Amino acid sequence: MRAHRPLVQCLTNNVVSNFSANFLLAAGATPTMCDTPQESRAQAQSASGVLINLGTPTQERYEGMREAIAGANQAGTPWVLDPVAAGVLEHRTSFMREVLPHRPAAIRGNASEILALAGTGSGGRGVDATDAVDTALAAAVQLSSTYGSVVAISGPEDVIVSGNTTIRLCCGHPLLPLVVGTGCALGALTAAYLGAVKDPLVAVTAAHAHQGAAGQAAARTASAPGSFAVALIDALYDLSAAEIADLVSWEVSTHAH
Amino acid sequence: MRAHRPLVQCLTNNVVSNFSANFLLAAGATPTMCDTPQESRAQAQSASGVLINLGTPTQERYEGMREAIAGANQAGTPWVLDPVAAGVLEHRTSFMREVLPHRPAAIRGNASEILALAGTGSGGRGVDATDAVDTALAAAVQLSSTYGSVVAISGPEDVIVSGNTTIRLCCGHPLLPLVVGTGCALGALTAAYLGAVKDPLVAVTAAHAHQGAAGQAAARTASAPGSFAVALIDALYDLSAAEIADLVSWEVSTHAH
Amino acid sequence: MRAHRPLVQCLTNNVVSNFSANFLLAAGATPTMCDTPQESRAQAQSASGVLINLGTPTQERYEGMREAIAGANQAGTPWVLDPVAAGVLEHRTSFMREVLPHRPAAIRGNASEILALAGTGSGGRGVDATDAVDTALAAAVQLSSTYGSVVAISGPEDVIVSGNTTIRLCCGHPLLPLVVGTGCALGALTAAYLGAVKDPLVAVTAAHAHQGAAGQAAARTASAPGSFAVALIDALYDLSAAEIADLVSWEVSTHAH
Repeated sequence: MRAHRPLVQCLTNNVVSNFSANFLLAAGATPTMCDTPQESRAQAQSASGVLINLGTPTQERYEGMREAIAGANQAGTPWVLDPVAAGVLEHRTSFMREVLPHRPAAIRGNASEILALAGTGSGGRGVDATDAVDTALAAAVQLSSTYGSVVAISGPEDVIVSGNTTIRLCCGHPLLPLVVGTGCALGALTAAYLGAVKDPLVAVTAAHAHQGAAGQAAARTASAPGSFAVALIDALYDLSAAEIADLVSWEVSTHAH
Repeated sequence: MRAHRPLVQCLTNNVVSNFSANFLLAAGATPTMCDTPQESRAQAQSASGVLINLGTPTQERYEGMREAIAGANQAGTPWVLDPVAAGVLEHRTSFMREVLPHRPAAIRGNASEILALAGTGSGGRGVDATDAVDTALAAAVQLSSTYGSVVAISGPEDVIVSGNTTIRLCCGHPLLPLVVGTGCALGALTAAYLGAVKDPLVAVTAAHAHQGAAGQAAARTASAPGSFAVALIDALYDLSAAEIADLVSWEVSTHAH
Repeated sequence: MRAHRPLVQCLTNNVVSNFSANFLLAAGATPTMCDTPQESRAQAQSASGVLINLGTPTQERYEGMREAIAGANQAGTPWVLDPVAAGVLEHRTSFMREVLPHRPAAIRGNASEILALAGTGSGGRGVDATDAVDTALAAAVQLSSTYGSVVAISGPEDVIVSGNTTIRLCCGHPLLPLVVGTGCALGALTAAYLGAVKDPLVAVTAAHAHQGAAGQAAARTASAPGSFAVALIDALYDLSAAEIADLVSWEVSTHAH
């Protein structure tokens, strides 16, 4: 990815915008956080990847998201849907259902969000998952087959589904959910890898591996969330592809329908 | 509080939203930053505590605040008013006067803000206090008796007033005001403790003690604001209840009206 | 500047607002991020300096910017224009052309932004410069003579133009562009120095020297962007004027028209 330096447009919530942008820069991508209705379409047409993150959007940003998705689809730019708090809060959940038919290249959420998005769960608690990763596997398979998206369920173990292929990736660290925005930033990183790597399943897996490895590396020097967040950004920047491969492990399986 | 893991909804300014959310996570609470008119009421009904922080709100967020306060009061969720820059800027000051009769469980501000909110001062300079903590004591007593709120005046020494009880808490550290959002995050932490501890005066005092102790602990390893902010988050996470009690001291007094 | 503790009003993008405010506090200024149409004019009238940063503004913030510029000019408060992504995105570029005749005391951008603002370039890529600093020298001279502004072009070497005087300042560090908001925060610091130092050319140069020196100092202890950002804030706070002068070097030249 560092060779491509993909330009990644993030339409994301204010809480995590700074952290997500630093995440992208450290990982080798170039962030642009353009999210207004007037500029989002043009930006999405020249971007390599687009993130649509539903954390507390204003009406103006909802409109910007519609424009960005349209621009992305016009230009063939892959876009990622991060269904923050799907099922918990109605207004955003209905927006997610509106945009799903525009076929995101990837969907990334926790188990409760994926279940709610597929219409088979009732959502978590605020932005936290209350369901285990595996309970959302059928929902992920359904979303993937309906919309052609790679679907990633984040958790202690990440599960990534594309058609009838499932990849299980180890290595979520317990400190990751104690830093605000690590999930949201993973959505941004997913958009970056989709802009740099041709195969979407490989791209989504690489993004999760990069963050997972960075989490493992950060935990070597930090044991509390403040210093862990700093070490995580450092590790995203420092780790080579070989080091990432050393730090994570995964398992591929296929299943019949 | 860590046992309760209260869900705290923060309607707060963009400048501090990330820091406040990390603050809450490190201290053992779960943040949700939902602040839109469409979703704030429902979120407040399921939250354990709500923060209304008046740093530069947009019109849309003002509307979200009205909804959140209504939802909180319908559900009996305690809410905290942080009157940022009260008296300095007119538009938000008149909003504060509008919502005060909805009886916040707690009000937390610096001396200038508390004086201005009570109508007995002219406000500080930007977001900084220009008045000493003790000058706002009578204003705090007045606000507490009028609205039934616990009123906390932040400063080098914190003063917390509830009815005719006053608690003085040592231990503000000079680096705390050099990190943006430590006051705002203390408001969020106050909402968290109100969601976890039954007695409001105990809850407000515990929030101030937790931050005060974390400031003392952070200052052991950091002497400049960048590393101090990181160490502060670490300390919020690391400190046990016993360590907090060791690091702070307080003094309770009662006064006749 | 630390003696003056100027109050600096930043109308800036959500991505960098926290970092910029911490930057100002560490450097010795007091930030206020007030940016609403209702309050921006009054705040600008009492501020020592105002920053207008065009990173992804909402319609409401555009209106706030118009009010702040009007208030600043009424009160004689110097204001800084940071033309983020000028030339790349049309809507904000036309806003920049609208406000330029209100004569900012300083303009700070990268080479691509300065070229686009002067109408002699096509803009960069997202927020990144694609042009070398020196290619924008003529554009900077043109902007300076038309609007009476000090114009600073940020890059590996900073070039600052005022009328027929040019100052070249060494010392941009390669990690600086890998931390989100270092350019935007430099705009805020420029507004702070303009509020504390009488001569605008000296003020703009001092702001760039302070950040350049802090970057050099931070690089002594940090070699990746997460820890570098923390060390940068620490260095802004720790460095004395003498240490800043030791760490940077500059060259003044004059040119005929």
